[in-house]
Amino acid sequence: MTIQSMNDLFLHGLQDVYYAENQIAKTLSEMMDQPIEAALFDNLEHHLEETQEQIKRLEQIFRALGQAPQGVTCQAILGLIEEGQELVREIEDEKVRDAAMLASAQAMERYEITRYGTLVAWADQLGNTLAVDQKELGNLEIVDLLQLTLDQEKSQDARLTALAESRINRAAAQH
Amino acid sequence: MTIQSMNDLFLHGLQDVYYAENQIAKTLSEMMDQPIEAALFDNLEHHLEETQEQIKRLEQIFRALGQAPQGVTCQAILGLIEEGQELVREIEDEKVRDAAMLASAQAMERYEITRYGTLVAWADQLGNTLAVDQKELGNLEIVDLLQLTLDQEKSQDARLTALAESRINRAAAQH
Repeated sequence: MTIQSMNDLFLHGLQDVYYAENQIAKTLSEMMDQPIEAALFDNLEHHLEETQEQIKRLEQIFRALGQAPQGVTCQAILGLIEEGQELVREIEDEKVRDAAMLASAQAMERYEITRYGTLVAWADQLGNTLAVDQKELGNLEIVDLLQLTLDQEKSQDARLTALAESRINRAAAQH
Repeated sequence: MTIQSMNDLFLHGLQDVYYAENQIAKTLSEMMDQPIEAALFDNLEHHLEETQEQIKRLEQIFRALGQAPQGVTCQAILGLIEEGQELVREIEDEKVRDAAMLASAQAMERYEITRYGTLVAWADQLGNTLAVDQKELGNLEIVDLLQLTLDQEKSQDARLTALAESRINRAAAQH
């Protein structure tokens, strides 16, 4: 795909985050197969459910744009995932591993927030210049769907931060 | 390096971000060598100056911990950089390329915010359990130095967001 316009760049961004969401879904499932603390498991499970919903939302946007849902390889998310998995494999102590997994989950989350933030801004800029099949979207616009996901990602990030803080407070109490 | 404790994980995190900062410095210089709009150039130049300062701050922390400043390959930042550069190479139109570069700069910035946020939390948790050579730090603690960098990164991110918004407003005015 050659990128010649903001519309092309926007479509490329959608394909990038579509690939990333699918990789994240796979990675979250793998993380949940490992022995991890209950609160972190619940958090990842919730993130996985939302990720599946967000993938469907992206597919709805692709349909509205008359495009087949399709990903482009996203080196950024692959690097983030690989780094997190490599680190976790090196750690034997469960508590230390949980801390590393939490940091890794948060790095994926922040990546999504960054990409969706950019997509919301671009969708806003492109506005009516996007050729959209409105019956795929009902009363909504593409920017609304992206904003919905962005809000979910931010809430998920806040839950991860709260989890990190509660771990740190518990650890401090044990000193 | 085997990671057996939170102290090891913290040190690994410092090495990861040290590598990332050095890669970012290199990438920012390369971005500035390309034809880009003046406001984006100024922003990248400012980011580069702060990056060099942040690298020195990390070296100070390594010294305080009695460690030689050393990076570990950070797949995440390599992926982020590679993805941004690949995308930019594909774009001929200057305005579209500027938009892609801005998004790429912001993705690097957010990555740093995430990692420094985690390091601040871990430094806070580890507190007095870190063996520190206080004469390297003066009146400060390691967590203060990391927080200083985190605050700089957040300000830099806000400047990038403002720049993105002003671009979008200008584009909208041209419609």
